[in-house]
Parts: sequence; structure tokens; C-alpha cells
Amino acid sequence: MLTPFRADLSVDVDRWIAFSKQLLIDGCHGLCPFGTTSEANSLALDERIATLTQLVEAGVPAAKLMPGTGASSIPEAVKLTKHAVKLGCAGVLLLPPFYYKGVSDEGIFRSIAEVIDRVAEDALQVYLYHIPPVAQVGFSLSLIERLLKAYPRTVVGLKDSSGDWNNQKAILTNFPGFGTFSGSEKFILDNLRLGGAGSINAVANVITAPLRKLFDNWQTPQAEQYQEDVMVIAKARGDYPAIPFLKQIVAYAQQDPTWLTVRPPLVQLTDTQAEGVITKLTQAKFF
Amino acid sequence: MLTPFRADLSVDVDRWIAFSKQLLIDGCHGLCPFGTTSEANSLALDERIATLTQLVEAGVPAAKLMPGTGASSIPEAVKLTKHAVKLGCAGVLLLPPFYYKGVSDEGIFRSIAEVIDRVAEDALQVYLYHIPPVAQVGFSLSLIERLLKAYPRTVVGLKDSSGDWNNQKAILTNFPGFGTFSGSEKFILDNLRLGGAGSINAVANVITAPLRKLFDNWQTPQAEQYQEDVMVIAKARGDYPAIPFLKQIVAYAQQDPTWLTVRPPLVQLTDTQAEGVITKLTQAKFF
Repeated sequence: MLTPFRADLSVDVDRWIAFSKQLLIDGCHGLCPFGTTSEANSLALDERIATLTQLVEAGVPAAKLMPGTGASSIPEAVKLTKHAVKLGCAGVLLLPPFYYKGVSDEGIFRSIAEVIDRVAEDALQVYLYHIPPVAQVGFSLSLIERLLKAYPRTVVGLKDSSGDWNNQKAILTNFPGFGTFSGSEKFILDNLRLGGAGSINAVANVITAPLRKLFDNWQTPQAEQYQEDVMVIAKARGDYPAIPFLKQIVAYAQQDPTWLTVRPPLVQLTDTQAEGVITKLTQAKFF
Repeated sequence: MLTPFRADLSVDVDRWIAFSKQLLIDGCHGLCPFGTTSEANSLALDERIATLTQLVEAGVPAAKLMPGTGASSIPEAVKLTKHAVKLGCAGVLLLPPFYYKGVSDEGIFRSIAEVIDRVAEDALQVYLYHIPPVAQVGFSLSLIERLLKAYPRTVVGLKDSSGDWNNQKAILTNFPGFGTFSGSEKFILDNLRLGGAGSINAVANVITAPLRKLFDNWQTPQAEQYQEDVMVIAKARGDYPAIPFLKQIVAYAQQDPTWLTVRPPLVQLTDTQAEGVITKLTQAKFF
């Protein structure tokens, strides 16, 4: 989920709540606030705590939420995770600690184990967040296996945002029953065919209905076409950074420039870039 | 500065204060708590706030402190920086936001500008923390120039931990008078010869006196030898991760195994690795 900001860069909670409700109406099975696309790591811990509470209090069912609760420090990941469990969230999407690079599987195992042990809640359902292109630190197959063995009732799935189908395929085939989500819309059909759980992806912010159509009809003869249909956004993106690009689409679709605002270090698209995107998507009959 | 931890991974504040005082007695001109070597990004914001206050209250002069105050979010970098200024710290070492990769100079500029503008304290002295091998995000020459022009009284220096002498040389020659510190002990003499400010480095945790001797005598005929002398630790390190390696040395020197503890995702050296390090340093007459 994208996070809207006011001009002073504070979270626009009202817009965020309305957007969340709309995504559920449009067909999302659940929502993932505080992922990479949410600019979660550009938010302070207390902002993440306060706004998640507001989201649930506003009537977005916690049972449909899988907030990102990873942090570079264990105490902060614990605090965020505990808060999500107390609110009744369906699960949490857990980034590994991401500041130190080249760390060992042993070190990442201990980090995740510390978080799980300190949260100490039977209701905790952890989805590992594997996104090496951004976090640089990720979950190897042997590390996933070790975590599954150590925490079989807690570590229940993974979001694979490696962008590498061979990696996702290996997870799907090695760990049947594990809730493996495709982080890219490109592999949704392939994911489902190998028993995957579906997809948690950034384009769901703007093409919920086509994604839902694909999910609901993946065993039909039209599935390949539906898979092709959800690629419309990726085709228009080119080299633009994903988050400003998606915010541009939402801002245009809703005719609401508030959505253009990103927190630094991200920068919104230039007017020329924005026009190019809108033109491409208009030609593709998206608008 | 290294950060000692108790067995439960909490900061061992008493040991940390004693260690800080000893480093100043041994010859450090100042201290840099909450750098990469301090495992700062494995600490929660509230731990960084509380322990820095305790350090100053224990009598370590704030005028000798340059705490790391960077964070992946602007509000947290602001809070940490403001706190350091209020305590009277000589300066702050500011990491750029480090979660998103491949961000533009424009985006990093806006991040740093937001932090400086929001802190809004004349006493603020910012040292940019350039450590691309870990943070992946850093400060290009043109970005440094832009920050210097925009905040000439606030952006006063940089710690170059790129490990790339050509980069450090370019900063030293392009920005005379800018407080450029070598992040590696390898380039101290070269840094000083080009008008640099000195060095903020990890080995100062274990070889303060030889570093001070080099700094005080860099214009003498013995300087090359003193520069060679401070390389003793690097020679013993091999491929071991720097922080567990340095903690092993402190633990052995002080005969205090508390120092071995690191926070995940870091992992302490194995017994075999530790023995190898001690043997090498004993042979080098370090112990």
C-alpha cells in the first residue's frame, strides 16, 4: 500500500484510511501497510504505531492486515510486531535487519528468532519479507528451511520480491504449504500454478480488479490473458522509480495532487515524466 | 566507538561510559558513539537517546562527542540530531537515509536539508557520513558541494569511509577547509598531508595511543613509520567482520568476555577464529 503525505510530509491519515477501504472494496483480500511501497522505512516508529492503530479504529479489519514490522534494530521490530499482534492483525511482513551488509544466515536467523521469542505471542504469524534489490539482505533457501523448522507455527509464509522467478520457484517447490506470495505481478499465474498463496505487489494500488480477476480465474483458459492484462502498469513504467510512478497514477486517477508527495530520499516525477506516463497509460486504455 | 552489550543484548551503559572515558584518557580527541562500529542501527531510537544522555551525565564532555544521528526516516534523524545539539555535542555524524537504493542526489539533498531545517539550531554542526560499502547510499562530490553552498555554517565536514583514497583525495582537494576525516586508518597520513581533519576509525577502539602518535607527529620524519604502526590491527583482521573482530580484541585485552557480545545480525567470532586473531596479534607484539 502507498502512503499519502500532506505537504508537510506528515501521513495523511484520512486519505490513507479511505484508500485502504477502497482497495478492499475493489477486491484486495488483504492489505499490507508499511511495505517498501509504503515508504515504511521513511516513517518513524511512533508514526507506524499510531497510524496503524488509527487504521483499525477507523474500521479496517485487522484480520485483513499484514503490516510490515521489520526494522534495522531488534527492539524496534519487536515493538512494531507486538503492536500488530495486539491489534489482531492477520500477520506481519518481516524485513530482516537491513543496515549491515554481507551478514551470515546465522546472524539473520538469530535476528528473526529474537523478534519471535521476544514478541512471544501464539497469535503471531510471520511472513518473511525477501527483497534483496532494496534491503540487500534476504532469506536464503536454507535459512527459510531453518526458520520453518524452528518456528513451524509462526513462520508461515514469505513475500518474494527478489524479481527472480527461479528463486520463487525453488521456494514453492521446496516448501509446499508455505504461504509464498509473489512480490511481482509478473509471476502471479506461475506462483498459483505451483501452489503459491498469491501476490503482494505494488501495482495492486492501481489495478486491483484485474489482479483479482486473475486470482479468481487462474485455472480457466483465460488465465494467460488475465496475467498479460496485469502487466499494463509495468509496461508504462520504464525506468521510473516505482513509488513516485505509482503515486503519479493515483494522483491522476483521483485528480488529487496530494498523492504526488513522497518523502525524501524519494522524489516525485517531473512534469515531463508524468505526462509521458499518463500518455502511455491512456494509449493502453488504462485511463 | 564500540558498544558493549549485556547477555540479554541491552546496552551495558556502565562499561560503555568507562570505555568512553578511557579512550579520551588514552588520547582520542573526541568520540563518535552510534557509528557503524557502534552497531547504532541495531539500537532503537529511544536507546540512543537515553544512553547518550547518560554518557554526558556521567561526565563525558559533550564538546568531545560527535554522535551518529542518521536514520532511515527523517523524523527519527531529526529527533536524534536535536537531542545531540541540546546536549551540547560538538557535532553529529549524519548518515543519509539508507533503505532505498539508487536514489538521486536530489533526494539525498532534500533529506539532509529537511533534517537541518527541522532541527533549526544555530549550534548544529553536521558531518556527513559517507560509507557506501555499508549504507549503499552516499554523498557524491557534487552533492557535497551543493550542501556546502546551501548550509555553509552547518555542513562542516565529512567522514569518508568509502575505502577509496581517490574519493577522499578529491574531497580534500575540492573542498579545502572542509573537515574531512578519514574513515580508514590506512589514509591518515595522506589525509593530514592534504589538509584533512584527521581520522574517525574503528581501530581507535584498540590502538588509541599509536593513532595519536601519528596525528601529533605527521610532519616529522618518523611519520611513515607511525602510519605503518597503526596498520597492525588491519593486518590481523583478514576477512573477519570488523565489529566482532574488534570486540574480540577488547574482550581479550580487558579479560572481560562481556565485550564479545554483538547484536544480531552480527555474530561473534568462533573460538578458532578468536584464537587465530590473538595469536597473530601476539606475534605482532600487540599483546
